[in-house]
Amino acid sequence: MLSTTPRTTLRRAKDRGRTSREDLYAVLDAGLVCHLGVVTGGSPMVVPTGYGRIGDTLYLHGSTGATSLRDADEVCVTVTHVDGVVLARSSFHHSLNYRSAMVFGRARRVEDAEERLAGLRAITEQLAPGQWDATREPTGKELAATMVLALSLAEASVKVRQGPPVDDEEDYGRPIWAGVLPLHQVWGTPEPDPALTWDLAVPEHIASRTMPAAGK
Amino acid sequence: MLSTTPRTTLRRAKDRGRTSREDLYAVLDAGLVCHLGVVTGGSPMVVPTGYGRIGDTLYLHGSTGATSLRDADEVCVTVTHVDGVVLARSSFHHSLNYRSAMVFGRARRVEDAEERLAGLRAITEQLAPGQWDATREPTGKELAATMVLALSLAEASVKVRQGPPVDDEEDYGRPIWAGVLPLHQVWGTPEPDPALTWDLAVPEHIASRTMPAAGK
Repeated sequence: MLSTTPRTTLRRAKDRGRTSREDLYAVLDAGLVCHLGVVTGGSPMVVPTGYGRIGDTLYLHGSTGATSLRDADEVCVTVTHVDGVVLARSSFHHSLNYRSAMVFGRARRVEDAEERLAGLRAITEQLAPGQWDATREPTGKELAATMVLALSLAEASVKVRQGPPVDDEEDYGRPIWAGVLPLHQVWGTPEPDPALTWDLAVPEHIASRTMPAAGK
Repeated sequence: MLSTTPRTTLRRAKDRGRTSREDLYAVLDAGLVCHLGVVTGGSPMVVPTGYGRIGDTLYLHGSTGATSLRDADEVCVTVTHVDGVVLARSSFHHSLNYRSAMVFGRARRVEDAEERLAGLRAITEQLAPGQWDATREPTGKELAATMVLALSLAEASVKVRQGPPVDDEEDYGRPIWAGVLPLHQVWGTPEPDPALTWDLAVPEHIASRTMPAAGK
């Protein structure tokens, strides 16, 4: 079960709330970027960034010189998938079909070498499954320049909207088309780096990727 | 030209910065959702939500009962498009190709009836071009329940990364495939609301939509 703290309890559209940890994992595991919210100088800042998950911990990384992460104390991480546009009979009831997850917590800077490496591996694998083992591992210098942050999934909420529009009763009789225009994400054809000096086939784990980071 | 305030001046990856207002408009106009960052009780909260643009003003809306908008003072609005995964020869240089815009400012609650309606129209049209005129306009009751916020685009930054990976010089000789796996968003086949009682063709402005809110 997910948390029921004040900020993870839905006040509106309660029927869109999901409460199982599996729902949370599914939304997080299907994403490529999260939107990381931090407070700097009293103002909010929202930064798109990569992430990875191991069990009930989310990992983020950044340059040790990045201000958005250096100040990270309380953070909010949001992952959103847009699945379609909901076209209602009234402008008021237009909406999106989506899946989104919000995670609240205090980010912990990871110091342990083993956990740092595991976190970075999770972040790379979230972006491109199979690439950690297929490419050169980080050097000591690269590791020193990278900050790894861990965020517990203890306080999180999930919202999902799917299905046709919900119009006002008196609007169903109007001769206005209504429905859903689905939106899909699809991988294109892999584009080899022009600087490739070897005659290499596209690796199977890249060529066969069929959905954007769907599952792990 | 875009602003050069401390929070819109890039400290890292400066070559990814774009400085023209047209770049900002292009990123904003191509999106369906933004991630709205606010500070509530000292903590950040990041909420996915629709938006619209008229000139140099961004419009957001929400229920008058929504806590995330009621407290909105200083906000940060971020719009991100992921265009592909950048597959490098080292895990360290993996990245994403993306276009993103960040807008900072103090949200202004719109009270003027005409501007409220124009803002709501822009939000609907961003989600589904052509739908404002094709569907029922808001009633007075719906308008009363909706809060419209305006955010100036005066303070904004744009970051864009495109193209192949950039590896360390000594890694180019490795026999590792490198390149870009492009990611595209495509519209699916419109799904009529099962509750449609009229035999209506899918309107042209919906059926012919070819890219997710690309341009206006």
